Amino acid sequence: MERPSSEIIQENRDYTLFSWSVQSQANPIHMTHAQGVWFWDGEGNKWLDFSSQLININVGHQHPKVLEAIKKQVDQLCFAGPSFATEPRGKLGKKLAEVTGLAKSFFTLGGAEANENAMKIARLYTGRDKIITRYRSYHGATMGSMTASGDPRRWPVEPGIPGIVRVFDPYCYRCPFGKTPDSCRRECVSHIEEVIQMEGPHTIAAILVEGITGSNGLLVPPDDYYPKLRALCDKYGILLITDEVMSGFGRTGKWLSTQHYGVKPDIVTCAKGLTSGYMPLGAVIVSQPIADYFEKNMLWGGLTYSGHPVSCAAAVANLSVYEEEHLFENTETQGRYLAERLEAMKRKYACVGDVRYKGLFSVLELVRDKATKEPLAPFNGTSPEMQKLTGYLKSKHVYAFSRFNMVWVCPPLVITREELKYGLDIYEEALALVDQMLGAVAAD
Amino acid sequence: MERPSSEIIQENRDYTLFSWSVQSQANPIHMTHAQGVWFWDGEGNKWLDFSSQLININVGHQHPKVLEAIKKQVDQLCFAGPSFATEPRGKLGKKLAEVTGLAKSFFTLGGAEANENAMKIARLYTGRDKIITRYRSYHGATMGSMTASGDPRRWPVEPGIPGIVRVFDPYCYRCPFGKTPDSCRRECVSHIEEVIQMEGPHTIAAILVEGITGSNGLLVPPDDYYPKLRALCDKYGILLITDEVMSGFGRTGKWLSTQHYGVKPDIVTCAKGLTSGYMPLGAVIVSQPIADYFEKNMLWGGLTYSGHPVSCAAAVANLSVYEEEHLFENTETQGRYLAERLEAMKRKYACVGDVRYKGLFSVLELVRDKATKEPLAPFNGTSPEMQKLTGYLKSKHVYAFSRFNMVWVCPPLVITREELKYGLDIYEEALALVDQMLGAVAAD
Repeated sequence: MERPSSEIIQENRDYTLFSWSVQSQANPIHMTHAQGVWFWDGEGNKWLDFSSQLININVGHQHPKVLEAIKKQVDQLCFAGPSFATEPRGKLGKKLAEVTGLAKSFFTLGGAEANENAMKIARLYTGRDKIITRYRSYHGATMGSMTASGDPRRWPVEPGIPGIVRVFDPYCYRCPFGKTPDSCRRECVSHIEEVIQMEGPHTIAAILVEGITGSNGLLVPPDDYYPKLRALCDKYGILLITDEVMSGFGRTGKWLSTQHYGVKPDIVTCAKGLTSGYMPLGAVIVSQPIADYFEKNMLWGGLTYSGHPVSCAAAVANLSVYEEEHLFENTETQGRYLAERLEAMKRKYACVGDVRYKGLFSVLELVRDKATKEPLAPFNGTSPEMQKLTGYLKSKHVYAFSRFNMVWVCPPLVITREELKYGLDIYEEALALVDQMLGAVAAD
Repeated sequence: MERPSSEIIQENRDYTLFSWSVQSQANPIHMTHAQGVWFWDGEGNKWLDFSSQLININVGHQHPKVLEAIKKQVDQLCFAGPSFATEPRGKLGKKLAEVTGLAKSFFTLGGAEANENAMKIARLYTGRDKIITRYRSYHGATMGSMTASGDPRRWPVEPGIPGIVRVFDPYCYRCPFGKTPDSCRRECVSHIEEVIQMEGPHTIAAILVEGITGSNGLLVPPDDYYPKLRALCDKYGILLITDEVMSGFGRTGKWLSTQHYGVKPDIVTCAKGLTSGYMPLGAVIVSQPIADYFEKNMLWGGLTYSGHPVSCAAAVANLSVYEEEHLFENTETQGRYLAERLEAMKRKYACVGDVRYKGLFSVLELVRDKATKEPLAPFNGTSPEMQKLTGYLKSKHVYAFSRFNMVWVCPPLVITREELKYGLDIYEEALALVDQMLGAVAAD
């Protein structure tokens, strides 16, 4: 017997709390089923998932190979504690070493716990305390990861953990150093050396950065940013930790976003695309020297579900889908089309200040005025124009992630050209409405 | 093609890191399959799981009803983001409200994140900062939960978050106040009032305690401990948060351990027995006034996998197994037998200083000398005698949790009298060996 959707929504509202929400304002969609880049609500509407849920469902919804692998492992062995060896755990560890060039994985359940453990591991390995992170960043909501984040979501729970030192971002559109492409001398890296010197290099365990900044603006760094950052870390014996929770596993067309820049971090954290979210799983992947250190030294970390067999089996299947179905190649191909469309939107619409993209990881940054770059909504706020835009996308059943003055385009990596075009056309309709509100006229 | 077990173990060691271990000393068992209270290793040995893995697999291994529910949900809808309403999410929220008498659930993936969010919610709701916790406690390994813990596992990552104030435990066998049953005036509660007064009642958001302390000694409080603690909280407007990660969901024969004492907390955190570990899931369950507060105020917390449909579906099925198969009644029945046997061991063996139990949640605390109570191993350490005991249990393929001078008995709640007797007889053989090492003679 099918229950009415309204009843299910009411039950969810009556008995469960929604993330990052004033509960009376939460307006949950009842998802009934899903397939590929599409999902359906309880009223029979078909939605285009242009956000891969929370930028996680990389292989698309309900991929049969991943579902099969999960069900097979459930029947074989649904749970074993973290001190046990299991076949999927070993297999996944080996695969992650292969695709990252690193040595060993410690398994968590999500990105927050992965970053917690990465910081702990860096501190234990180096014997140093401080962690350098960036202002425009999000690393998770547990206290350690939340403090590591620069995101305003940390404000209500401050003060957080001691030892976090924050630096500025490679945000070229609004350079914190007031530079332009011509005058830029990569102050976004060089000022970190100033911070290191003033904090004391011997006190700094690691620099923790998102591979490519996700929910704080999709900040694609200049091509020499990572080589310079790696060199800086090496100069002072500081570990480089990249948080690839959003940017890893094909989102940019590679296993890790740093592989675009020829740089190998000492520690990688991941989640989301690791299983596409089919099962909760995160991982901290460490280099050989760090793995060697813990051969003789205690790893002071753990959780009941570390190495959960079903999560590991889901990840193994999910990673093989990337390879068997050439999804990174599709990401590149569709990413090129996406880039063309975004650049065209920037030319055409007055409200599009900047577009940033790598593979199928992209954002439009919206402004009131291209010359002054005044944001379409203030930092940590919204505006009638932004609400118009997001309301329009919703009315057309395009599911998109937006925040402040930005709206993302991050569909599942299985998306076709037609599906991508379908969504982007609706984005253009929304941008035209914003331009109308601003009293601007499209450029062509 | 079956791979040899030695190869799987080597792959696990080569490519994955084990929790709370010096990796070269990790000695993982390869679990191949499991059923009820039993699991099998790669050499064909059948193990009795006297620890329910990490005190989580309450319905026993591979329960067909839970497996079916998981596979059904996987086929229906494997993932929906945390802002969506889904049928299993609503159903689970409603069921948790029913069995706890509280109002709404916020879903996490495990106990650590549940405690992180409980503390955050308490701070947001009360507008106060400090959290009182107990020394002999473990609340999880993320920075907030780790600092909340008194457990030595926090030492390597201190200093942690600010605002944690620790008090003493209801540890009657080694009363921190030097009291005996005759002289006791419940100083374990009254000293908390002294702490509240000196810290400033208006600065204290919550008292966070394990329902019944688990991995720090299974400390069953006196019957009036919780009523007194509840009264103290009410007197000062402080929230009572009970961490039921281990002690909840039938482990003691009730949904919540505080239900033995007629007390209702303001917030309950749980994980483990919520799904029996079949799928990762944790929850923060809050009272109506707290739920009401977040109707109009922002809940500053979230995670990608909050309300994961498969985890919720697994929990719904798992909770129905407790009811349909009368597992709490079995816990009571087998728990009575367990209690008798433990008390008899305490009488019989010189090395058994104390036994503590509630339902199928129990521990033996071992000593060198009953009169002096000198522990069989030092705090945060081990000893040849403890190693003899745990080595013997392992040699007989009884999987047990032990720590310092204690060994636990916490089998799945489906255990039969015969299975329980089988394991306890082997415990007795191990205790006899310890007595031999101590040069003591059994009492009968």
